[in-house]
Amino acid sequence: MHIENKLNDLGLVLPAPLAIPPEITVSFAWTRRRGTRIYVSGHIALRPDGTPAGPFGKVPSAVSLEAAQEAARGSTLAMLASLKRELGDLDRVTAWLMVHGMVNAEPGYPLTTNVLNGFSDFILELYGPEVGQHARLAVGLAALPLNAAVTIAAEVEIAD
Amino acid sequence: MHIENKLNDLGLVLPAPLAIPPEITVSFAWTRRRGTRIYVSGHIALRPDGTPAGPFGKVPSAVSLEAAQEAARGSTLAMLASLKRELGDLDRVTAWLMVHGMVNAEPGYPLTTNVLNGFSDFILELYGPEVGQHARLAVGLAALPLNAAVTIAAEVEIAD
Amino acid sequence: MHIENKLNDLGLVLPAPLAIPPEITVSFAWTRRRGTRIYVSGHIALRPDGTPAGPFGKVPSAVSLEAAQEAARGSTLAMLASLKRELGDLDRVTAWLMVHGMVNAEPGYPLTTNVLNGFSDFILELYGPEVGQHARLAVGLAALPLNAAVTIAAEVEIAD
Repeated sequence: MHIENKLNDLGLVLPAPLAIPPEITVSFAWTRRRGTRIYVSGHIALRPDGTPAGPFGKVPSAVSLEAAQEAARGSTLAMLASLKRELGDLDRVTAWLMVHGMVNAEPGYPLTTNVLNGFSDFILELYGPEVGQHARLAVGLAALPLNAAVTIAAEVEIAD
Repeated sequence: MHIENKLNDLGLVLPAPLAIPPEITVSFAWTRRRGTRIYVSGHIALRPDGTPAGPFGKVPSAVSLEAAQEAARGSTLAMLASLKRELGDLDRVTAWLMVHGMVNAEPGYPLTTNVLNGFSDFILELYGPEVGQHARLAVGLAALPLNAAVTIAAEVEIAD
Repeated sequence: MHIENKLNDLGLVLPAPLAIPPEITVSFAWTRRRGTRIYVSGHIALRPDGTPAGPFGKVPSAVSLEAAQEAARGSTLAMLASLKRELGDLDRVTAWLMVHGMVNAEPGYPLTTNVLNGFSDFILELYGPEVGQHARLAVGLAALPLNAAVTIAAEVEIAD
């Protein structure tokens, strides 16, 4: 699959780990691997240097649907960066399984599905339908870490 | 177990897949199977033809507890329909494992537990305590896809 | 590891199961074990007799960050009590895998990460980094069962 080549072709850079802002502390792991499973913590969009990229605030009042989809794509890139640090090679992911897509949403916002397509379309583009296909929950939260617009967690399979 | 016979006896029909409304697009899978696990995406209640059944809006201001419990039961039926399409036979589910129950709730609504019993009671009625028993998270969200009152995702086990 | 000795040394008592308040009914399992996995339902902080310990309400308007962290620690103790009833011995947990941390948050509250450190720091203190390390989602909900400030669910590994 050569996922990293595809990222290069798209002009995309895997960001550094989250540069922890002074107001939070992080006492968990970005990825947890056991056997053929990796559990991936909630990720937000990051700049290449690991600082939070934003956008911040509620969808759609402070962050448009299009900007939220871009944030979902940025969260995906941050997840891939964590998986790369865990695995060395992103081609070692053999199946995307379950995705928990979380949108910082105004009450009753009905388009969380479309926001999370920013994740799903990107993963399918990179991994193809066989490996990239996944089940998903796409819901609207009252609050997300650092007031990010989108946070995404996942469970993936790797070869034994 | 003959789950489908029980559904027939109850006069219940497994709905068609979600008839995608024009305002959303769906780029994920309703079920993702690997080995002995199936990850089931968030499902909402559907009419037999696959159109969203509602109710829509916040519990309890726009949707009563009783209507939300019925929506949870409807989400269950939609999940069973997806599992039937994946497996051919609903008796192939050997254990319900984890359930993520999501209620479109007013801030501070304290009875999300009771809403999700509409799911749990139904699954226990169909599958019995050995197979049907499950762990569960029942929480109140700011927003759900299409503004549905209830969305439910799950992880189940099947025989190898 | 002798987790229970450590709890004793800290002067902590594993609470009784939730004493179900009259307004809710519980039709699910606190833990669901299959093979090497235990799925742990959403837990809230409990008093030793199983009554809900609180605090109740929104973080940070009704419940301070510090009180919410303490609630996360209390939820952890309730989860450990459920795991003890399932396993007999808390040392049988061989890995904490994924944690779903849910905070009853005011819209836009940015510090759900810090709230959930009340869970993560405690588990790492008890189990050490090898077993205790976990992936995590820490998000702000519109509503939680019984209006608790914090609810936490998890997936853990046990020896076969």
